[in-house]
Amino acid sequence: MATVPLVSDAEVPPEAAAVFADIRATRGTDFINNFWRALANDPPLLAATWARLKTVMVERREGGLDPLDKEMLYLAVSMANGCDYCIHSHTAAARAKGMSDAQYGDLLAVVGMASQTNALAQGLGVPVDRAFIVGD
Amino acid sequence: MATVPLVSDAEVPPEAAAVFADIRATRGTDFINNFWRALANDPPLLAATWARLKTVMVERREGGLDPLDKEMLYLAVSMANGCDYCIHSHTAAARAKGMSDAQYGDLLAVVGMASQTNALAQGLGVPVDRAFIVGD
Amino acid sequence: MATVPLVSDAEVPPEAAAVFADIRATRGTDFINNFWRALANDPPLLAATWARLKTVMVERREGGLDPLDKEMLYLAVSMANGCDYCIHSHTAAARAKGMSDAQYGDLLAVVGMASQTNALAQGLGVPVDRAFIVGD
Amino acid sequence: MATVPLVSDAEVPPEAAAVFADIRATRGTDFINNFWRALANDPPLLAATWARLKTVMVERREGGLDPLDKEMLYLAVSMANGCDYCIHSHTAAARAKGMSDAQYGDLLAVVGMASQTNALAQGLGVPVDRAFIVGD
Amino acid sequence: MATVPLVSDAEVPPEAAAVFADIRATRGTDFINNFWRALANDPPLLAATWARLKTVMVERREGGLDPLDKEMLYLAVSMANGCDYCIHSHTAAARAKGMSDAQYGDLLAVVGMASQTNALAQGLGVPVDRAFIVGD
Amino acid sequence: MATVPLVSDAEVPPEAAAVFADIRATRGTDFINNFWRALANDPPLLAATWARLKTVMVERREGGLDPLDKEMLYLAVSMANGCDYCIHSHTAAARAKGMSDAQYGDLLAVVGMASQTNALAQGLGVPVDRAFIVGD
Repeated sequence: MATVPLVSDAEVPPEAAAVFADIRATRGTDFINNFWRALANDPPLLAATWARLKTVMVERREGGLDPLDKEMLYLAVSMANGCDYCIHSHTAAARAKGMSDAQYGDLLAVVGMASQTNALAQGLGVPVDRAFIVGD
Repeated sequence: MATVPLVSDAEVPPEAAAVFADIRATRGTDFINNFWRALANDPPLLAATWARLKTVMVERREGGLDPLDKEMLYLAVSMANGCDYCIHSHTAAARAKGMSDAQYGDLLAVVGMASQTNALAQGLGVPVDRAFIVGD
Repeated sequence: MATVPLVSDAEVPPEAAAVFADIRATRGTDFINNFWRALANDPPLLAATWARLKTVMVERREGGLDPLDKEMLYLAVSMANGCDYCIHSHTAAARAKGMSDAQYGDLLAVVGMASQTNALAQGLGVPVDRAFIVGD
Repeated sequence: MATVPLVSDAEVPPEAAAVFADIRATRGTDFINNFWRALANDPPLLAATWARLKTVMVERREGGLDPLDKEMLYLAVSMANGCDYCIHSHTAAARAKGMSDAQYGDLLAVVGMASQTNALAQGLGVPVDRAFIVGD
Repeated sequence: MATVPLVSDAEVPPEAAAVFADIRATRGTDFINNFWRALANDPPLLAATWARLKTVMVERREGGLDPLDKEMLYLAVSMANGCDYCIHSHTAAARAKGMSDAQYGDLLAVVGMASQTNALAQGLGVPVDRAFIVGD
Repeated sequence: MATVPLVSDAEVPPEAAAVFADIRATRGTDFINNFWRALANDPPLLAATWARLKTVMVERREGGLDPLDKEMLYLAVSMANGCDYCIHSHTAAARAKGMSDAQYGDLLAVVGMASQTNALAQGLGVPVDRAFIVGD
C-alpha cells in the first residue's frame, strides 16, 4: 500500500530502465524488488540510491568487511529503526548470503540486548567515561 | 550528568559488588565503566543486565558470530538508536576487539546507507514483496 | 487493525460529533479519515488534538509558512518517525495542497540525506561547533 | 567528545583536502564544521557524503524546492531523529538562508504537532484509509 | 508476514515446549501469542526473553509498581517505539488487567504530550537545568 | 547549548510573562526550568504547550490516572525517545511526586524489557494476533 505506483517493467522510463538493468546484472537475477519499483517514480533518486548502495554493499574495500557482515549490520540497523520493509528484504538478503540459524539467533540476541541497554543508558543519563572519548 | 549517583567502589552494596567483581574477572581489567556504576543503584537490575550481556556478548554459540561481529552489531544498533553513551562505549569495545579503520569505515557507510533507505522505504510505504515473507 | 473501534457517524457521541462537523466545515469535505474516527473514542482527546491541529496547520501566522510548506514538514517528520498512517495521510494532504512531483522528489531526497547524516553525526559523536550555539 | 579525532587543516589527507576545498568554494566561507572534520578520518565516506549533500541541498531541480524549504525539511527530520549536532548545524544553516522567527516558530509548532499525532496514530494502530493508498 | 515460521504446538522443539508450558501455567490460559511462536525458532532466545519478562512483569518487588502500572508503562514505551505488534498485545494485556477507558485516555494523552515536548526540547537543544542533575 | 536564547525574567515579553506566572502559581514554586525559557522565544507556542501540559498533567479526569502514574508514563516515553532533557526533568518531577526507589527500579526494568521485545517483535515482523485487533 505505497504512496506511489510501483513501476512495472512496461512503464519504466529510460533513466530508470538503465538502473533496473544494472541491478539485474549486478545481482544476477531478473527479480526487481518493490523498493526499486517505488523509487523508479523519481529516476534521479533511484539512480543515486542504487549507485551508493552498490558502492557500499557490493564493492570491497581493502581490509574491510565481507558482504555477509555488511548485510547483517544493515539488517540490525533496519530492526532498530523499525523499518518493516527493510527488515524483510535484508533478512532475505542475509539468508541468501549464507547467514546460518545460529548467526541469525546471535544477531537477534545482540539487537535485543543493545536496544535494552541503549534505553537504560539514555534513561539514566549516564555520562560518557573519559576513557571512551577520542576527539574533543 | 546522570539522574542517579554513579556508585563508587567504596559505596557499592554487596549484591552489586559481586557483579562488579564478575565484570572485572570476565574482562580482565579493574575498570568499571559508568553504565554499571549507574545501574548499581538498583542491584537486581544490575545483576540481570550483566548476566544477560555476558551470555549474549561473551559466551559462544556453536556456529554463531565471533565477538567482534557481535560488537559491531551492538555499535550499529546504538548508532541507529542515537545512544551517545553506548556509541562511545561500544566503539571503544570494538576497537579493543580489533576493529580496523577499514572495518569501521565500512560499518559507518552501512549505517548511513541503511538509515537512508529505511527512511525512504518507510516514507514511500513500500509493500513487502511476497518473496520475502516466511511466516504468515 | 486498530486497538479501538473506528467510530462511525451513527455511533459518534455529541462532543465528538461537534468536532467531526468542524473538521468537515474546515476542510470543505464530508470525508472523515480514520485517525479522527479512532480518536473519537475519547472525545476530549479528539477535541484537543483537532483544535491544536487546526491552529497549527490551518491558521496563518503573519510572516509564517504557507500551508504546503507546513504540510511537507509534517510529512517529513512522519517519515522520520516511521508512522505509516501519517505518511499516507500527509502525502495525500500535500498532494491536495499542490505538491508537485519535483517537490515530492526533493522532499524524499532531503529526508534520505538527513537520515543518513543524522546517523553519521550521532554515530561519530560529533561535538556541536561553538558557532552554532545560541543559548547557554 | 567524538569517537574519532577531528581532522585539522594541518592533518588532512589529500583526498579529504580536495573535499574541504570544494566545501569552502561551494559555501563561500573558510569555515569547515566539525561534521566534515570527523568524516575526514575516512576520505571515501567524506567524499561520497559531501557529493550527495551538494547534489541534494545545493543543486536545483526544475520545479523543485528552494534552498530554504529544503533546509527546513532537513532541520525537521533532524529534530524528529533527535540528532543534537544536526539540529544545531541546520538551525544555523536555515537562519543563514533567511528563516525568520515566524517561520521558525511555525516549523517548531509543526514538528511538535506531528510528533504528537504520529505517536497517537501508531498508538491506536489506525488503519490507513483506502483513499490514501496509491500503489498496491 | 514474519521473517520466520510461527512455530505451532505440533512443531515446537522440547526446550521451547517447556517455555510454552510455563507461559500457559503463568498466565492461566492455553493461548500462546505469535511473539512467542516466532521466538520459538531460537529456543535459547525464547527462554531468556520469557524468563526476564516473567521476572519484570509478573513477580512483585517490595514497594514496587503493581501489574497494571507496569503494563501501561510497557504500552507507552511500545507506542513511543512505534512497535505495532507490541502496541496491540500490550493494549490487550492492559485491558485484561483492568485498564479503564479513562485510564487509557489519560495514557494516550500523556504519550501524545510527551512525544510533542520531547521533540521540542530536543529541537531547541535545551540544556538540562543544574537542579535536575544527580550524578556527575 | 540551545539553538535559542533562554529567556530570563528580565527579558520575558508580556504574553510569555503571563505563562510564567501561571507555571509558578500552578506548581507553587518560583523556579522556571529551561524548557519554558527556551519556548518563551515564541510566546504562542509557549502558551499552547503549557496550556495542554496543564490539562494533561495537572487536571484530573474522573476515574483517570493519578499524577505520579502520569509522570512515570511521561518519563518512560522520554526514555524511549532518548530525550535527555526530558528524562532529567521528568525524573526529577516523578521523584518530587513521590516515586520511590523500588518504583523507579521497576520503571527502568520495564523500559528496558519493552525496548528489547519491541526490537525483537519488529525484527521478526511478527503478525498481530487476530485476538488483539479491535477496530478494522
